[in-house]
Amino acid sequence: MAGAEVKVLGQWASVWVCRVRIALHLKGLDYEYVEEDFNNKSDLLLTSNPVHKKVPVLIHNGKPICESRIIVQYLDEAFFGSGPSLLPVDPHQRAIERFWAAYIDDKLVVSWVQAFKAKTEEEKAEGIKLLLAAMEALEGALRECSKGKPFFGGDCVGALDAAEAVLPDVGRVVEFAKIRRTQQAAAEAASAAAKKN
Amino acid sequence: MAGAEVKVLGQWASVWVCRVRIALHLKGLDYEYVEEDFNNKSDLLLTSNPVHKKVPVLIHNGKPICESRIIVQYLDEAFFGSGPSLLPVDPHQRAIERFWAAYIDDKLVVSWVQAFKAKTEEEKAEGIKLLLAAMEALEGALRECSKGKPFFGGDCVGALDAAEAVLPDVGRVVEFAKIRRTQQAAAEAASAAAKKN
Repeated sequence: MAGAEVKVLGQWASVWVCRVRIALHLKGLDYEYVEEDFNNKSDLLLTSNPVHKKVPVLIHNGKPICESRIIVQYLDEAFFGSGPSLLPVDPHQRAIERFWAAYIDDKLVVSWVQAFKAKTEEEKAEGIKLLLAAMEALEGALRECSKGKPFFGGDCVGALDAAEAVLPDVGRVVEFAKIRRTQQAAAEAASAAAKKN
Repeated sequence: MAGAEVKVLGQWASVWVCRVRIALHLKGLDYEYVEEDFNNKSDLLLTSNPVHKKVPVLIHNGKPICESRIIVQYLDEAFFGSGPSLLPVDPHQRAIERFWAAYIDDKLVVSWVQAFKAKTEEEKAEGIKLLLAAMEALEGALRECSKGKPFFGGDCVGALDAAEAVLPDVGRVVEFAKIRRTQQAAAEAASAAAKKN
């Protein structure tokens, strides 16, 4: 869409901002990126997202759109024909992609945050357990949806790959979680052996 | 879509099931409704929604679709041309409707549940405060989007009206919340007066 003015209000550490930027790059769209300071939010952010006051916000020709999943769908609809479609054409496949994108937000990222922000060892262990279970479900879905190909949609990268890609360190998170579980199991075994002796 | 088999697995008390059924009625689609027992979930529910094991599930020609907001979008896309469109045509308006539908789920219903399930008076008061704030924001959005007309989309009922309509007693909830706040204020005033005397 020649001449369209697209701006993203973001923050470098936000996985939701990454999702939007990946979608913009997949669609091949030029945009201006504005880094926000969480401790001193800009007037533009506060007026563009007065309800949640959060990034990411996409501003397209002066009109703001908030929430990363909604932005990705907006990009697909407003820039239809520009670059590849992010969602599949088939309504059922679209529903499946929306389901797993919501799952990533509501289950996977939430348990990941819980594991890393936990104040006690018990809370941390519970978060890691939920994270591993969520990862397992997501990997099962990827196997089923991709049919052995590299992306959720098979050969073509799409919205759900952008959603999954917002977790840049997910492999390391899982590795970390596995190491923690091994350590915990070793500590429990040592404790049990000490009690026995 | 003649000959299409549509089934809804639901539970009478679920606001999310109401949303799906309202959408089906708005689209003028025939469907079979199957009431689920929460204490004894059917095999059909467990196999159709193995991730969340929750209602509503829409089954269209044997293919399950889960999560009420996703189902409503699916109905709009799979039954395009059958009955009115539930989402507007304009991408920006669609994004706004998706935003407020998510807001109803994530803010309004959550605070409503918090207010009614609270174990202490403090939790209840906090839930009611959040509920009133969420209602106020939603009413502001309705004023802005409807431009004085009866529905979010103006003259035409749509997906967001179906989303809002899932709160059948919302007027009564707000009245109840106002009464509780008045009672609380009166109790605090009486307590302060007693201390003074």
